[in-house]
Amino acid sequence: MTQVYFDHNSTSPMLPIAMEAWVYAQSDAWMNASAPYRGSARVNALFDNACERIAERIDCKMNEVVFTSGASEGITSIFFWLAREYPAEKVLLAPTEHTAVQRAAEFFFPGKTDYLDANPDGSIDLRQLEEKLLTREYAAVAVMAANNETGLIHPWKLINALCRKHKSWYICDATQWMGKLESHEIGICDFLVASAHKFGGSKGCGLLKLPAQIDDFRLILGGEQQEGRRAGTVDYPGIIALVEAFDWTNKLTSKINDYRGNFLRSIANKIPDITINTDLNNSLWNTLSIALPKYENIRWIHNLDQAGFLVSTGAACSFETRASKTLQAIGKTSDEIRRTIRISSSWNNTEDEWQELAEAMIKIWNKLGHEDQ
Amino acid sequence: MTQVYFDHNSTSPMLPIAMEAWVYAQSDAWMNASAPYRGSARVNALFDNACERIAERIDCKMNEVVFTSGASEGITSIFFWLAREYPAEKVLLAPTEHTAVQRAAEFFFPGKTDYLDANPDGSIDLRQLEEKLLTREYAAVAVMAANNETGLIHPWKLINALCRKHKSWYICDATQWMGKLESHEIGICDFLVASAHKFGGSKGCGLLKLPAQIDDFRLILGGEQQEGRRAGTVDYPGIIALVEAFDWTNKLTSKINDYRGNFLRSIANKIPDITINTDLNNSLWNTLSIALPKYENIRWIHNLDQAGFLVSTGAACSFETRASKTLQAIGKTSDEIRRTIRISSSWNNTEDEWQELAEAMIKIWNKLGHEDQ
Repeated sequence: MTQVYFDHNSTSPMLPIAMEAWVYAQSDAWMNASAPYRGSARVNALFDNACERIAERIDCKMNEVVFTSGASEGITSIFFWLAREYPAEKVLLAPTEHTAVQRAAEFFFPGKTDYLDANPDGSIDLRQLEEKLLTREYAAVAVMAANNETGLIHPWKLINALCRKHKSWYICDATQWMGKLESHEIGICDFLVASAHKFGGSKGCGLLKLPAQIDDFRLILGGEQQEGRRAGTVDYPGIIALVEAFDWTNKLTSKINDYRGNFLRSIANKIPDITINTDLNNSLWNTLSIALPKYENIRWIHNLDQAGFLVSTGAACSFETRASKTLQAIGKTSDEIRRTIRISSSWNNTEDEWQELAEAMIKIWNKLGHEDQ
Repeated sequence: MTQVYFDHNSTSPMLPIAMEAWVYAQSDAWMNASAPYRGSARVNALFDNACERIAERIDCKMNEVVFTSGASEGITSIFFWLAREYPAEKVLLAPTEHTAVQRAAEFFFPGKTDYLDANPDGSIDLRQLEEKLLTREYAAVAVMAANNETGLIHPWKLINALCRKHKSWYICDATQWMGKLESHEIGICDFLVASAHKFGGSKGCGLLKLPAQIDDFRLILGGEQQEGRRAGTVDYPGIIALVEAFDWTNKLTSKINDYRGNFLRSIANKIPDITINTDLNNSLWNTLSIALPKYENIRWIHNLDQAGFLVSTGAACSFETRASKTLQAIGKTSDEIRRTIRISSSWNNTEDEWQELAEAMIKIWNKLGHEDQ
């Protein structure tokens, strides 16, 4: 049975263009970029070119780009650096940040990690942010570009400007933004992280942008690769796959669809009392978090899996604990959270697939109703 | 022109079996191992199987295996953990350790990183090690399994036993050992690190073995992947490629060849006064470090590159600084170091290729002699 995958906020399969680039690079540019012969100098030049392409796309300098193993590494390395530079200061987070950001902040700033309030839609109050910044107590502020669970979009450009004005560093986790929305200015954020596998690159490869003026930034120690900011043999195949996947998805960001809107209209009269956790007017076009009126999410997910549709509860990495930080932070009850599923599409999911998902859900709703009688 | 690659201690191209496994996994097992549907549970089971296969091969427990982005990350994470657990203690290193080990030790144990002496062949004195251990000042000892520049083999089994006896942790950087020599017991070392791309896996993937009883081990923070010891979406395609490459190379470790010996005999009478930095009786079969009688190594390397042979100066990651830590530690003069080249083969290099390399070197020697006249 073909399965229709609706969990792209968790991970995406590699895009053919990225896969091709990776495979080609493994035969054409596999040498160590730091070795002393011409083939190696060529890999180094290709690596520089990859940095340049990304820098140009997101509007930052080439020497501000560092390739990592993923967003979690990028985030950890930022807080590791902050803790050494500003040991006496605090950090400020949106309460809906990804586990990676919360854990890295709490680990390196124990007892000194403060949280902004969240409005019921998950948004933060920029006036509260400015008030906090005025205390001058915060080395850095982290507010993600778009939320992994609800898809909510945060005004990263304004937040970056506020942080600049008040001399705090702004950390933008763009893991869910890049590849889904126009990114040509996101490199203006002081710090930026993303993971290639969220937009069709390979797992184990990520992007970190940091301000050029920062010295002595490093988490993984060793050789002088990447200007000393990230040791370890450069994974050029992974990097070029990241760049190709990003380019491919980035070109589509003008063609946002509203398939999820049609999906919601299709199920609205058939499954009553659905709670929409996602702010449909200010969120990623691909993401939909809804609390169903009845039955635990895991029962829905298993039934949908049987019917050939893959959706999720929320963040994959917190599946086992079943505690959605985002939904808790926006005031959802644990009962609502247990009834919540997350649907997240890619550029390749068609309107038909969304409609088929709607039909499958209606069938399951009716079936579970019968079973319960 | 075909080029013959003799720099496998720097990196190797992916083995076909590893490439196939990687490509297949990208279509068959690309889902997030932590998601709540069956496809994801399957990836998780495959991941467990990969851990089990490695654990069985190297004789450790399955839950002692962690997959990282490479040896540098593994090393950094070990010293990061040690510094938090034993803030008042010191660490002890062989002076010929890789830059990654030296830098991580010096960073996390500043002023508290001590070095053993090296004999002229690079070996350490086990009595000196035991004397140091008897002081009870050392949280950990790092002596690599085999040296990346000279190929010298250290008695890791004895060192591990000594460390156990005196209650220090033993850190074994097996980056150059694994894939080249029999590894069925190397997992008995307390800590072990390796990089997949050194034995035909992909870049950006590595292996860390740590003692099962250790709690709270983590460098990269975030989700609870890999039992909380390494956050970030599991890169199953990279991991299965690592396992397949390791298996393939590991099966060959009984078939060690002495092509380098024949190579040395071939050039011995044609290029006079070569200094052999490698201890031929106690080193990796694939590695040969020699100081040529005349001309800077970089001139040799460029001439060999033109002739179709790729060899190196020493560690790729220190190419730019041109300072070989290993050769300095074993008392080589900077003049000798400047005349040193490193030749490192793989299982796929043939005896003919070694002989062709010998002929090319003799030609270059004669040519450079003429040019100099």
